[in-house]
Amino acid sequence: MEKKVIKLSTEAYKGVRDFYPEDMFIQNYIFNIFKKVCESYGYNEYNASVLEPADLYRAKSSEEIVTEQTYTFTDRGDREVTLRPEMTPTVARMVSARKQELSFPLRWYSIPNLFRYEKPQKGRLREHWQLNVDLFGVTDTSAEVEVVSLAYTIMKEIGLKDTDFQIRLNSRKIMNYILSDLMSLDEVTAQKICRLIDKKQKMSTEDFDLAVKELLTEKSAEFLTLLNSQNFEEFVSKLPKGQEVVEKVDEIREVVAKLEKLGITNVIFDQTLMRGFDYYTGIVFEVFDNNPENRRSVFGGGRYDDLLAIFDGQKVPAFGFGAGDVIIRDIMETYKLLPEYRPKTDLYICTLAKEYQEYGNELAQKLRPVGVKVAVNLTDKKVGDQIKSADKQKIPYIICLGEDELKKGEFKLKNLKTGEEKVATEDTMASLILNS
Amino acid sequence: MEKKVIKLSTEAYKGVRDFYPEDMFIQNYIFNIFKKVCESYGYNEYNASVLEPADLYRAKSSEEIVTEQTYTFTDRGDREVTLRPEMTPTVARMVSARKQELSFPLRWYSIPNLFRYEKPQKGRLREHWQLNVDLFGVTDTSAEVEVVSLAYTIMKEIGLKDTDFQIRLNSRKIMNYILSDLMSLDEVTAQKICRLIDKKQKMSTEDFDLAVKELLTEKSAEFLTLLNSQNFEEFVSKLPKGQEVVEKVDEIREVVAKLEKLGITNVIFDQTLMRGFDYYTGIVFEVFDNNPENRRSVFGGGRYDDLLAIFDGQKVPAFGFGAGDVIIRDIMETYKLLPEYRPKTDLYICTLAKEYQEYGNELAQKLRPVGVKVAVNLTDKKVGDQIKSADKQKIPYIICLGEDELKKGEFKLKNLKTGEEKVATEDTMASLILNS
Repeated sequence: MEKKVIKLSTEAYKGVRDFYPEDMFIQNYIFNIFKKVCESYGYNEYNASVLEPADLYRAKSSEEIVTEQTYTFTDRGDREVTLRPEMTPTVARMVSARKQELSFPLRWYSIPNLFRYEKPQKGRLREHWQLNVDLFGVTDTSAEVEVVSLAYTIMKEIGLKDTDFQIRLNSRKIMNYILSDLMSLDEVTAQKICRLIDKKQKMSTEDFDLAVKELLTEKSAEFLTLLNSQNFEEFVSKLPKGQEVVEKVDEIREVVAKLEKLGITNVIFDQTLMRGFDYYTGIVFEVFDNNPENRRSVFGGGRYDDLLAIFDGQKVPAFGFGAGDVIIRDIMETYKLLPEYRPKTDLYICTLAKEYQEYGNELAQKLRPVGVKVAVNLTDKKVGDQIKSADKQKIPYIICLGEDELKKGEFKLKNLKTGEEKVATEDTMASLILNS
Repeated sequence: MEKKVIKLSTEAYKGVRDFYPEDMFIQNYIFNIFKKVCESYGYNEYNASVLEPADLYRAKSSEEIVTEQTYTFTDRGDREVTLRPEMTPTVARMVSARKQELSFPLRWYSIPNLFRYEKPQKGRLREHWQLNVDLFGVTDTSAEVEVVSLAYTIMKEIGLKDTDFQIRLNSRKIMNYILSDLMSLDEVTAQKICRLIDKKQKMSTEDFDLAVKELLTEKSAEFLTLLNSQNFEEFVSKLPKGQEVVEKVDEIREVVAKLEKLGITNVIFDQTLMRGFDYYTGIVFEVFDNNPENRRSVFGGGRYDDLLAIFDGQKVPAFGFGAGDVIIRDIMETYKLLPEYRPKTDLYICTLAKEYQEYGNELAQKLRPVGVKVAVNLTDKKVGDQIKSADKQKIPYIICLGEDELKKGEFKLKNLKTGEEKVATEDTMASLILNS
């Protein structure tokens, strides 16, 4: 059997990313902020497989979305499998499965990769990672306050100032009241209006108003007046004053007031905020980038008290959000907040000749258990080239092993960034590196 | 449109795992050992998508393996996509793509999830995670010594003793010499023999000998004598004494001797060690569990100097291994090395009434920035039940907020495990928790 000479492409699959160490460094930096903040709020990490039964998404999406916007295929056991496009159905499944044993309220987070089958474009890849934060079991607005405050803390930890971003709130309860009680719309028209509002930012005012008129006919004027309110109080003043309105409005006021008490003041009400998912039932929120050159939604979430009922009919109060890695990285780039690459490696041991490699390995084995991260030269390169290579890899420290060094047991520990040299022995080297 | 009442299953897809916080804790514990050891050797983390072009696997596997043992499907752009069954083709692709810019030797690691389409069974799931460690650009045995030593360190960091496991070495060069030069086998028969040896452990001696006889006919006796050697020296004594044999044999001796100098003495030569992949070209190794009740391979790897040539015809020396999470977890369980679960959360703030929650949140916001991980009670549960819930979640510390505490500014910080109580103020609480 003669083997064909094939030349394979080194390109990744369309719309996904390779993470070289420099990319991984940024990814880990962002994920570590996610983890640190979530854990500081007492949230526990969970995970699941990217493979889920396709039915999990059919329950709350249309067949069209499942077949056209997700990666769904049939396995050889005739099961329909989907590469998860979002994490909420998965976490809902997991919580529902162990509802009896779990201790509520449940504070959970995960950083899964998600897949969407769509045309790759800036900020919209076929695969991305997304922090998911969810709080289960809290009915009142203390859930909103905690989770929104956590989201705020992430933005701050990334390095943004309060003036750089805004937290926008809306209430599905108010929107539903307007659409079904005030406007008396059927469910289908109400959904169409919601989708339309979701696209408002990307349309001209004329086009938007026209589309509203088409859907709402004689009610469109009243609706547009409401929607075009300049602020929360103006919006509220246009609503009826009955108890059912007051309750919904007070919920928003409460969240804003409580966040303010925690020092979070860049919060506004936005009656045009929708957030895509149909499963939201109460307050929804969005973190919005104020950058004048690129005003945009960074991430968001909301309350979804009914979703868990798809499993056993029982509702579980839930509030959560998802924040994607691509846009977070993009914002950090825009605001010049990306950290400078540096490998974990502390020390590169150069060797003046192959014979010193053995001692290099032994020395490395002594330094590693005390926490120094060491790479030993394994090549025949000249020592100058070894140093260049260490420098190119941005490893901060080097020593060079030769006859003199081994005889004396003393090594010149050089900081490649500052050029500073210190004399180190086997015993002092670790502390000279780690305490610098 | 009336919605159907559907009751969805909460089960995960067949053969994959859900990671609840307790599972994630173990997973993270194992991954942190992987990361710590790899980084202590100067290895840099990389990653890629689980989606790869199916052609990547066709190059070095049969069409049969790709279509029957992997998850491969056609996307709507008519591209054949595979969920990666192993990481080596991916890392080879990434290294080949940037060969000009990368600084060799290249020390890389990753902990990807991998998919295999097979009947789920103990230790063999459809999805598992695998540490992949690879060293590119080193032709001599210093690569073997470094990477095997790293693998050894992982076993030690997991908590195993030298007597608990063994490192087994073999050389594809020696095997190829025996099969093609000594036995004059064609490639197909040689491959069949290799696969047979791979299954030896699971066969009776009679069945194995019989299968060898069928394949090798009159040469089988000589081959079985070689294969049944009791140790390396006996094996070597049965080989011809020419230069080409000596070189291959010396390579093994060198690796064993160098590992010994580094204090790694549980290393043996095993002429029956094959390791599945066809792309190995030199020394292969395996970490073997000595547990008398369950002697088994834990993980392994080898040299694959030719693999990168599938991209542009150019070879790059490479040595690496992959270690799966399922078997590592299993071994830790067998040897009682699994850590006891404890969440990251340090402190649970209980509230005697809803009105103290606001101060609870404010106190939490003061403690978080200095590193205390705090969850605040958001429920109307009685304080006794709040404490029970904190205890069930294994959170080590609690304080209870009531009128007295707020007035005095003093809190009883209780360690739920020891029962010990200390008086803390806003200012002393963090250090009492973090320095305990």
